[in-house]
Amino acid sequence: MAQYHKIAGGVTAAKGFAAASAAAGIKYQNRTDMALICSSVPCTAAGTFTSNVVKAAPVVWDREIVRKSDGPVQAIVANSGIANACTGELGLSVCEKTAEAAGEALGIPTKSVLLGSTGVIGMQIPVDKITAGVKALAAAKEETLEAGTRAAKAIMTTDTHHKEIAYEFTVGGKKVTLGGCAKGSGMIHPNMCTMLAYLTTDLSISKHLLQKALSDTVTETFNMISVDGDMSTNDTLLILANGLAGNPEITEENEDYHLFCEVLMEVCKFLAMQMAGDGEGAQHLIEAKVVGCDTKDHARLLAKSVIQSNLTKAAIFGKDANWGRVLCALGYAGAPFDPENVDLYFAADGEKMLIFTKGSAADYSEEKAAKLLSNPAVQIIADMHLGEEEATAWGCDLTYDYVKINADYRS
Amino acid sequence: MAQYHKIAGGVTAAKGFAAASAAAGIKYQNRTDMALICSSVPCTAAGTFTSNVVKAAPVVWDREIVRKSDGPVQAIVANSGIANACTGELGLSVCEKTAEAAGEALGIPTKSVLLGSTGVIGMQIPVDKITAGVKALAAAKEETLEAGTRAAKAIMTTDTHHKEIAYEFTVGGKKVTLGGCAKGSGMIHPNMCTMLAYLTTDLSISKHLLQKALSDTVTETFNMISVDGDMSTNDTLLILANGLAGNPEITEENEDYHLFCEVLMEVCKFLAMQMAGDGEGAQHLIEAKVVGCDTKDHARLLAKSVIQSNLTKAAIFGKDANWGRVLCALGYAGAPFDPENVDLYFAADGEKMLIFTKGSAADYSEEKAAKLLSNPAVQIIADMHLGEEEATAWGCDLTYDYVKINADYRS
Repeated sequence: MAQYHKIAGGVTAAKGFAAASAAAGIKYQNRTDMALICSSVPCTAAGTFTSNVVKAAPVVWDREIVRKSDGPVQAIVANSGIANACTGELGLSVCEKTAEAAGEALGIPTKSVLLGSTGVIGMQIPVDKITAGVKALAAAKEETLEAGTRAAKAIMTTDTHHKEIAYEFTVGGKKVTLGGCAKGSGMIHPNMCTMLAYLTTDLSISKHLLQKALSDTVTETFNMISVDGDMSTNDTLLILANGLAGNPEITEENEDYHLFCEVLMEVCKFLAMQMAGDGEGAQHLIEAKVVGCDTKDHARLLAKSVIQSNLTKAAIFGKDANWGRVLCALGYAGAPFDPENVDLYFAADGEKMLIFTKGSAADYSEEKAAKLLSNPAVQIIADMHLGEEEATAWGCDLTYDYVKINADYRS
Repeated sequence: MAQYHKIAGGVTAAKGFAAASAAAGIKYQNRTDMALICSSVPCTAAGTFTSNVVKAAPVVWDREIVRKSDGPVQAIVANSGIANACTGELGLSVCEKTAEAAGEALGIPTKSVLLGSTGVIGMQIPVDKITAGVKALAAAKEETLEAGTRAAKAIMTTDTHHKEIAYEFTVGGKKVTLGGCAKGSGMIHPNMCTMLAYLTTDLSISKHLLQKALSDTVTETFNMISVDGDMSTNDTLLILANGLAGNPEITEENEDYHLFCEVLMEVCKFLAMQMAGDGEGAQHLIEAKVVGCDTKDHARLLAKSVIQSNLTKAAIFGKDANWGRVLCALGYAGAPFDPENVDLYFAADGEKMLIFTKGSAADYSEEKAAKLLSNPAVQIIADMHLGEEEATAWGCDLTYDYVKINADYRS
């Protein structure tokens, strides 16, 4: 029997978490553009952030709180439309004022409020609009699943659908819930994406282990997706744990910790795959699975190289089994291998075709391959025959719509 | 007075070099698809090749001859349509048979024939067609400028125009000529692109210095361009020096050597820029110039990161001065800097606009910026204010046509 199972909901699935959305008119009109996620009690928090040298103001704000202080966190306020990146001192003061307003409205300290922004780089967020938005959020917050969904929708930019998930598992006899939401869908190449992802759980766990679990999971999930190779200034993944499940606090890497890590992996993988599949203009989710590698690092390099190749992405858009581009992308990944020993497969919908083996094309039907590539989710499998390590990366095809969306994103 | 000047022609501009083209029907119909470049006397040769682990058969062939043997080289035979990459043993035997046929038809050793292929990866080249093509080439070779141009046209794939150039300079009282041709225009991200570039000169120079001059020049030219980030399996740059200018052989890094390097830089830069500007589907040549860096390596990383950013490329296609994407690309390049100290400019056609300074947007007119970005050649200049080093990289915009070309390239 599985030790965990999927349940309905997202960030408000866990005990004590409320959410809200608001239409603050920061840049978008006629839609919600602000979200609040908050807990009824102080939380332990962990986070991972963009490694871009150019960090958005809210990333600077959150890092300071999550990494450098030990104070509790109780709320996340996020907006879409403007990224608050490359905005200098003024951008930082907007953060300060937003957190202040949220602290006041929610009756919690300024420094227990984390922030997130996504949208156009370089524009300034109107302070009056965002602080008014904060008040509306505080007034509207609810502990319902619907409120979590509304929050997930408010942070969308070019996403075509909202992304949320929740799981339930048991720790020390207590029912624990972990839920989350995320948004893509361009400038996605996380090391850490503009991806924003927020997770909430009622688990009781030490800050150190919460951060370790999150960092380890990111390596295999969010850091293995790419929509366009552009690593955002705003990428942020946060998790809040409020302990309301009542389990004995997890303070060592025991069985309970590993169970939590397993559920965390499921949640992050789901959100990461959703993000890749909903990449700007995407018509296909592409999963590159590289097996038989000598080291894990090489496996990751190879898998990521395939999903990042513009030519491979364009070929998949065209339903063209142009496998030479996959071989080419493996070849420049930076991992050594012998092309004569690589087996390459295309797979989808339970079917798997051998495309390349022993240094040249296998005997396959182009027609059948084109049909297979018509599936919305396509898998590329490479067996390097060098060892036992493997890695999986997720991306999407390169389409006219990607160009269209990004040629006039600001207008 | 300049020590060198541009003259008409390409690979046949230098003394003793002949060229030809032929329509061998290897894959394309109703156009030429094979080129011959040959010298009336044996040449010293140097070359740089793709660093992709997956190397096309002709790359394997050429490397063996240029790098590992000291034997003279006298001819280059190249075809477009099929890349002869990922073709296993059969692909290597096609190389052997092509060189054999060329050696026979030209009356020179098999191992003095270099080869180049560009086109679809994975298909096999029909041996009968390529050997028949070789005979047609040998029969048609001429030492005219027009023959050089026909060769430059025969190696084109998705290029919209052929690329050739020639310069004249003086060494030891003798008139020396250096000419070249190249093709792009997708899978271009040289470290060493499928870029093929062939240079010919009547200079007399030692093999060691010819290779050194070529390798040093590539770093600043062909290796600083990117169309799509995909490093080809076939990238090849070759130079043949037949010594017919009659200058005293250059055997040390003296004034004559440096003059040659200077001309070589001009020739390679011209061809590299032509290749970037004629990238698949391109409407703009984008030049990224990063100045004020602490090290040359950081300057190169930063400049290349900007021209590789899909989001920046799509913005330029849209004539959208979305400078945040440029900052973002600088930020993930892998070179440290302080965003607060970066000055960013857009320039074109003699006009230069300050766009970003002191951590946030400068006071510029979006309308004027959009007008500036309507120029076919656009310059992005970043001053990092960290030192004296600089680098320039060239790329092109990301357009609907790039996706169109690559979604159905094989059909």
